[in-house]
Amino acid sequence: MTSTPVSDIVVGAPSLAPLLGLVEKDMERVNATIIERMQNDVPLIPQLVGHLVAAGGKRMRPMMSIAGAMMATATPDERGPAILLATAVEFIHSATLLHDDVIDESNLRRGRDTANALWGNDAAVLVGDFLFARAFELMVEADNISVLGRLAAASAKITEGEVRQMTITGNPDTPVDDYLDVIAGKTAVLFAAAAGAGVEVSGGSPDKVAAMYDYGLQLGMAFQIMDDALDYSADAAAMGKNAGDDFADQKITLPTIIAWQDGDDDERAFWQRTLGEARFAKDDLATAQAMLAKHDAIDRSILRANGFAEAACAAVAPFADDPATADLAAALCDAARFAAMRTS
Amino acid sequence: MTSTPVSDIVVGAPSLAPLLGLVEKDMERVNATIIERMQNDVPLIPQLVGHLVAAGGKRMRPMMSIAGAMMATATPDERGPAILLATAVEFIHSATLLHDDVIDESNLRRGRDTANALWGNDAAVLVGDFLFARAFELMVEADNISVLGRLAAASAKITEGEVRQMTITGNPDTPVDDYLDVIAGKTAVLFAAAAGAGVEVSGGSPDKVAAMYDYGLQLGMAFQIMDDALDYSADAAAMGKNAGDDFADQKITLPTIIAWQDGDDDERAFWQRTLGEARFAKDDLATAQAMLAKHDAIDRSILRANGFAEAACAAVAPFADDPATADLAAALCDAARFAAMRTS
Repeated sequence: MTSTPVSDIVVGAPSLAPLLGLVEKDMERVNATIIERMQNDVPLIPQLVGHLVAAGGKRMRPMMSIAGAMMATATPDERGPAILLATAVEFIHSATLLHDDVIDESNLRRGRDTANALWGNDAAVLVGDFLFARAFELMVEADNISVLGRLAAASAKITEGEVRQMTITGNPDTPVDDYLDVIAGKTAVLFAAAAGAGVEVSGGSPDKVAAMYDYGLQLGMAFQIMDDALDYSADAAAMGKNAGDDFADQKITLPTIIAWQDGDDDERAFWQRTLGEARFAKDDLATAQAMLAKHDAIDRSILRANGFAEAACAAVAPFADDPATADLAAALCDAARFAAMRTS
Repeated sequence: MTSTPVSDIVVGAPSLAPLLGLVEKDMERVNATIIERMQNDVPLIPQLVGHLVAAGGKRMRPMMSIAGAMMATATPDERGPAILLATAVEFIHSATLLHDDVIDESNLRRGRDTANALWGNDAAVLVGDFLFARAFELMVEADNISVLGRLAAASAKITEGEVRQMTITGNPDTPVDDYLDVIAGKTAVLFAAAAGAGVEVSGGSPDKVAAMYDYGLQLGMAFQIMDDALDYSADAAAMGKNAGDDFADQKITLPTIIAWQDGDDDERAFWQRTLGEARFAKDDLATAQAMLAKHDAIDRSILRANGFAEAACAAVAPFADDPATADLAAALCDAARFAAMRTS
C-alpha cells in the first residue's frame, strides 16, 4: 500500500469539527450510557459523578474508541461494544480526575469547584474507586477478554505514570525523557488503549488496531504537552482551572525543564527555590512566566506537541487511500493538529 | 441429598488450623504470586506494597478462592487460575486498605505504621489504584469472563459499601439493617465473590458456586462484626491497631447501635456528642466501653456473629457427605466458628 503524504491529508486551519461531526451520533449514545451507568442506590455516587460529568470536558478519550470502531468500518449497529468501551474509558478517566484532585488538593477544575472541595476527599477517593470498578463491569459486558486485558494494562500504566510524576515532582533538573515517560503513562496510554480497543472489539484488522493505538498514543502526548504548556500562559477563566496550578504543585513539565536546561545559575536557583523547595514568594509566578518567555519555553513546547501531532497523522495516513476510511483518517489528522494548537 | 446436621460437622473448640492445613501449599503459591506481581519499574510501588504485604494479615480472602477450587475438586495442577484469582482478590483487598487508611487518617495497621503515614496520602491513593488495575490484569489471565464479571461487580459493591459507611458515619441512630448493608458491601461481598469465583474458574458445578458464595458471604459478615466488636475491647498491641479507632472516627458499628437502642436519654446524649458531633473529652472512650458493657453490647454483637458463622456452616453442610469434600466442608465450618470467637 502506498500511503498518502501526511501533508496532503488535510488542508486549511486545523479543526476538531470534522471528527466531532463523524462521531456525533455515537457520542450521544456514549453520553446516554454514561448517565445510565453512573446511577446507584447510594445517592452520593450519582450526585458526585453527575457533578463531574456535567462539567463536561471534550470527551476525547471515548471519542477514540468510537473512531476506532469506525476505522474497523463497523456499522452503527455493530458499534454497541465500542460504546460500552467508550463509556468505560470515560469512567476510568473520571476516576483518575477524582483521585488527581485529591492528590493535587485542587479546588477548581473546568471552571467549577472540584468534587473533593464540595464533598471531601473521602468521597472523592471512594467514588473514584466505584467508577473504576464500574468501568470493568462495562468492559466485561463488551465481552472481549483480549480488549479487557489491554484496558487493564493501560489502567496499571496510568497509575505507574502518576506515581512516576510524583517521584519527579520537586526535581527541576528532571530530564526531558523522564517527563515524556510520565505523560505517556498518565495520559497517552489511555488514549492509545481506547483507540486500539475500539478497533479490536469491532473486529478490525491487527494493522488497524496497531495504527489506531499509535494514533492515540501520539495524540495523547500532544494533548498533555499542550495542557502543561498552557498552564503557564492561560488565565483561569479560559482554561477552567487555576493558572499556575502546576507551578504551585511543584510539577515538572516540559516548559520548566526547557527553562532549567537553558537557564543560568540565578535562574536555576529560582527554579530550585520554587519548584524544588516550595519556598514561594508573592511574584514568583510572574517571574516564572517571564523566564519561560525569555527561553521561548512555551513555544518550544508547542513545537514538540506539533511533532507528536504529525506522528499521529502519519499513523492513520495509510488509511487515507481507502474510500471507506478516507474521511475518518483526514478528520483524525485534523483533530491531532488542532490539539497541538495554542487555541485548543 | 440429605445434609449432615450442622452441629455434626465439627466437634471440639473451633480452630482455623484444619483449613490452614488444607490450603497451605496453595497459599505458598499465592504468596509467591503476590511477590512476583507487585514488582514494578517504579521503585515506590513495590516498596509500598511490600510494606503492606509484609505486615501480613490472615489472607482470609485469597484462602476463599483456594477453598473454592478445592470444593470444585480441582487437582493442584488445575488450581492455577484460582491462584491468579486469589492473588487478584488480595490485591483488591490491599487497595481498599490503602484507601481506607487515607480516608480514616489512620497511622497504625496490624501494629505497623500505615503506608499513608510513611509515604503520604498521594502515594497511598495511587498505589491503591495500581493494585486495583493489577488485580484486573491477573483476572484477565485467569481467562474466564463470567468470573471477571463477578469480581468486577464485587469491586463496585465494595466501594458502594464504603460510601454507605461514610453516609452513616456520625449517625448513632442508624438502624441495624443499614449497618448490615454496609458490612455486606464493604467486607462480605469480596469474601463471597472470592469463594464463588474459585469454584467457577475451576469448573465446579453451579450449586457449589452458589454454596461457596453463600459461605463466603456469611463468613464475611461474622468476620466484620467481630472486627467491629473487638475494636472496643482489645488493646492496640493485641489487635495490631489503635483501640477505639472506630470511636474516634465516629464509625457506627453493631455495639454502638445496640447501646444506642437500649440507652436512656443521658446515654443517647453521650453518643450524640461523641459519635454524632465528634466533641470528644478525655475519658470518653472509657465511658463508651462502660456503656457497652452495661448493655452487654459486645457479647450480643458476638452472638450475632455466631449466627452468621452457623449460616456459613449450613452453606457447606451439603458437601460434608461426599468423601471428596467432607474434610474441606468440616474445615470451612470450623474456620467460620473460629472467626466468630472472641480470641480470633
